[in-house]
Amino acid sequence: MSSVDIARQSAFGNRQSEISALPIGIFDSGVGGLTVYRALHERLPAERFVYLGDTARVPYGTKSLSTVERYGIENAKFLEAQGIKLLVVACNTASALALPAIGKAIDIQVVGVIEPGARSAVRIAGGKTIAVIATEATVQSGAYAKAINNIDPNAKVIERACPLFVPLAEEGWANSDVARSVAEQYLQDLRDADLGALVLGCTHYPILRDLIAETIGDIPLIDSGAATAREVQALLESTGASPAQREIEDRRLCDDLDHFYVTDAAERFAKVAERFLGTAPSVLEAVEVWGHDELRT
Amino acid sequence: MSSVDIARQSAFGNRQSEISALPIGIFDSGVGGLTVYRALHERLPAERFVYLGDTARVPYGTKSLSTVERYGIENAKFLEAQGIKLLVVACNTASALALPAIGKAIDIQVVGVIEPGARSAVRIAGGKTIAVIATEATVQSGAYAKAINNIDPNAKVIERACPLFVPLAEEGWANSDVARSVAEQYLQDLRDADLGALVLGCTHYPILRDLIAETIGDIPLIDSGAATAREVQALLESTGASPAQREIEDRRLCDDLDHFYVTDAAERFAKVAERFLGTAPSVLEAVEVWGHDELRT
Repeated sequence: MSSVDIARQSAFGNRQSEISALPIGIFDSGVGGLTVYRALHERLPAERFVYLGDTARVPYGTKSLSTVERYGIENAKFLEAQGIKLLVVACNTASALALPAIGKAIDIQVVGVIEPGARSAVRIAGGKTIAVIATEATVQSGAYAKAINNIDPNAKVIERACPLFVPLAEEGWANSDVARSVAEQYLQDLRDADLGALVLGCTHYPILRDLIAETIGDIPLIDSGAATAREVQALLESTGASPAQREIEDRRLCDDLDHFYVTDAAERFAKVAERFLGTAPSVLEAVEVWGHDELRT
Repeated sequence: MSSVDIARQSAFGNRQSEISALPIGIFDSGVGGLTVYRALHERLPAERFVYLGDTARVPYGTKSLSTVERYGIENAKFLEAQGIKLLVVACNTASALALPAIGKAIDIQVVGVIEPGARSAVRIAGGKTIAVIATEATVQSGAYAKAINNIDPNAKVIERACPLFVPLAEEGWANSDVARSVAEQYLQDLRDADLGALVLGCTHYPILRDLIAETIGDIPLIDSGAATAREVQALLESTGASPAQREIEDRRLCDDLDHFYVTDAAERFAKVAERFLGTAPSVLEAVEVWGHDELRT
């Protein structure tokens, strides 16, 4: 090995350890992605996170491909500028519609929630029909069906939009009679479909998990966020990008190692975050993510 | 009168008739403002309208003052550039939060829906308590209570946020059992408040009018959009800005004299518009309203 090679290797080693120490970026259209943050935090307690909720433009689930792509790219560039080692697109709609565009726009590896959710569903369903519940935009994109059929071309997939679940979760009505009858309306015919798995294809739906389970009966529920956390762990371990092992005891959700940004209405975010996580973010900051592109060019 | 004065008067006369012929601009955060468009169209069948629904950033009702101001100014500037004689801010949230900022930003007279709704409520309530149902942001602004107490400092006002009414109306669930139990939850204690009037302080709520009436009992419901249409008619007549009388028989809603713009997802807008108006817009165009400011300065 020449001295040049050694210098290179050492530089690479330094660079690698610098990268390992960087936080993981997460963005979502709003507060729902906190369920994905929670899953990542629980699985990877040594990691730091930078979370961006695009609360000025939430929700994405009723918006078009080109708009969701534009918002997704702006969010991704903002997080890239914060210095992150990996970007998790927590929002199912943005993962379904904008992942290729985001991947082209930034120089950091991007992980969405659709493919991990699809892989988990195929593994669990054992050849039986897979149902996916999601926003209008995610269902219309057919992204889950495509991802599932890429893995198993024979898999039968039913997709169903459940738009009222998001406001019900945000209002804290997850266990109300109203939510129960909404779930009944959306899901009753799926009970007879002999399902192998039901994918919770929107970040808000894990909040309604008990209600959905009660309505749908004894069918495995796939939380795409949890599936994504498992794959992110494997990815970081395989690329050596996990942080150096350090003593971590009782690192709490939302502690001040993690930074939360919103594009609007921080107060409302903090309130709903507490409903979602049981604790409010300690470092929460309002920012603008639009117009960065113009500034850079 | 000098020849200069005559020339001036004639130029003013021409200008006045040119102004009269211009359309009325209406903007809303999305599709809800179509209830205001409908009220204006029915009262002013000789007028043409230009409607802008900011569907890329809907809803406004959960967003902050500064964001709603920014969006409102961008929408207003877009409509001003289309050539309008008057701007109606159909969105209650934008009227509550952003009317002064919009008034400063453009050179055209601006009318919001809060003050007409408040005036109508005070007139109808006959000194009894007035209840206002609206979005979170409108309620938090206290704009209706302020407007009502400006007219009658002794009026008692109860404000109540009903955030689930908007998605229920948009989903076409206005007459469902689910909507019935949501209305029950939001309104049951208002039944005992001995109300003189209940203000429908969000453009979506007239869609739920029957359901609200059924829940609240025999109390006059104030539709701020309809109240605004009456005031716009009086304003145009008093300033001579009504169009020259022409034969108008059977001018239908959404005919091609009216132009509809959306900032996103025209297809979804057309679908929900049909649910709101019974007919889809004939001229519907997707546009960008942001960034006009930067271009102008």
